[in-house]
Amino acid sequence: MQRYFLDDSHQTGDRVALPETIAHHWVTVLRAEVGATAEFVDTQAHLFYGELTQTTTEAATVTLTAVPTPKVELPVHVTIACGLPKQEKAEWITQKATELGVDRIIFFGGDWSVAKWQGNKVDKKIKRLTKIAHGAAEQSHRLRRPVVSYAQNLAAVLQEPVDVRLMAYEESAKQGEQSALNQQLQAITPGQSLLTIFGPEGGISPAEVAASQAAQTTLVGLGPRILRTETAPLYLLSAVSMVMELQQPR
Amino acid sequence: MQRYFLDDSHQTGDRVALPETIAHHWVTVLRAEVGATAEFVDTQAHLFYGELTQTTTEAATVTLTAVPTPKVELPVHVTIACGLPKQEKAEWITQKATELGVDRIIFFGGDWSVAKWQGNKVDKKIKRLTKIAHGAAEQSHRLRRPVVSYAQNLAAVLQEPVDVRLMAYEESAKQGEQSALNQQLQAITPGQSLLTIFGPEGGISPAEVAASQAAQTTLVGLGPRILRTETAPLYLLSAVSMVMELQQPR
Repeated sequence: MQRYFLDDSHQTGDRVALPETIAHHWVTVLRAEVGATAEFVDTQAHLFYGELTQTTTEAATVTLTAVPTPKVELPVHVTIACGLPKQEKAEWITQKATELGVDRIIFFGGDWSVAKWQGNKVDKKIKRLTKIAHGAAEQSHRLRRPVVSYAQNLAAVLQEPVDVRLMAYEESAKQGEQSALNQQLQAITPGQSLLTIFGPEGGISPAEVAASQAAQTTLVGLGPRILRTETAPLYLLSAVSMVMELQQPR
Repeated sequence: MQRYFLDDSHQTGDRVALPETIAHHWVTVLRAEVGATAEFVDTQAHLFYGELTQTTTEAATVTLTAVPTPKVELPVHVTIACGLPKQEKAEWITQKATELGVDRIIFFGGDWSVAKWQGNKVDKKIKRLTKIAHGAAEQSHRLRRPVVSYAQNLAAVLQEPVDVRLMAYEESAKQGEQSALNQQLQAITPGQSLLTIFGPEGGISPAEVAASQAAQTTLVGLGPRILRTETAPLYLLSAVSMVMELQQPR
């Protein structure tokens, strides 16, 4: 069933005039008619069935009925901080990480980032990436929409208040380090927040490694193969799901 | 260091005239000069340093020295069988799955595949995907190059002789099934072969599910979120690495 996110909190019986973007997609693009039902998620991450009760051109009203909300969010709040990657990679990191359950995505200007986002380009990029995250959250039937933001450098990322900080570090993989990620994931408890830092194509500079370690960041390898900058976050999120969802059934 | 694959088995001291594609890339594109060194992997998955000893236009010779071969391959041989996906998704499944350690990739015509590969299009596609796999294997410093092939339907895939067969099944995720994948990965032993089947965008048909189950295939969920056809194989490969590499340090 189609799923959309609403911008308020709701309860059963609420009649809601749908925002124009939803009305356009559901009624105009998908040709939903009065009586059709879609899933709606409110700002409290509660799930509703919404029956289409009225449509006019580009406007639509639904009546909501609360339904049991399934557990589909990762048990920990995962933020990924990615050194600005080249070309369209930011878009697909955003789409795939959203499917895999990410909570926040921060793109930061890494010391060795080739890409630069400057001036009003930043706002435009973040707006576009936010739209991609919201679309992917609907498609993957999430209950939360990830927040996408920009940080000028890693120092700004390290000021985020989180419970656990990790950095994906290629040198760890090369040196055969194989257990730090598992140790960290075994120790984290549901409800905690986890930040993981990924370098851009050029990698993480020694200064960035030192600053991260000074901020209680654990360097972790993601297996013995060299992963591209856009693949490493997907490995991390899959590993979190494997350890915290599939190995610890709720 | 740059890495290339050779098409024979070798030993220390061998002088090898490089294939034209390698010579072109290393000497012409990367401008390597006599005395430069790259890594070479032979058909036995042994690693060598190769020193460039002679170059002419588009031809080059190296002298090989065997070096310790690191363990970078997954401890099990993983084949992914993917229902033919749309557009360029086959290309990026191939690239990303290679980085994540896949051994073989089979694209098959699923009952509900929208995409069709027909006639001489198949050869062209497989040739292109093989090239992508080889490039990704070099970049991710693999020791084996995945084999990419095409199967007309799932029945052909199910005839592949493997030790363990899994099918990623969205309905399992929806019904809250959360432990089958872990159980299967805990039971598999190093050296065994694992086939995992993924549906195309339209999903797996009931007939395909039944045929797979008749061929001793276990249905597994990949966490509670709905993953796109191109994301699910990456989750599986990351999970295999997490369980068999990071949780069981060798």
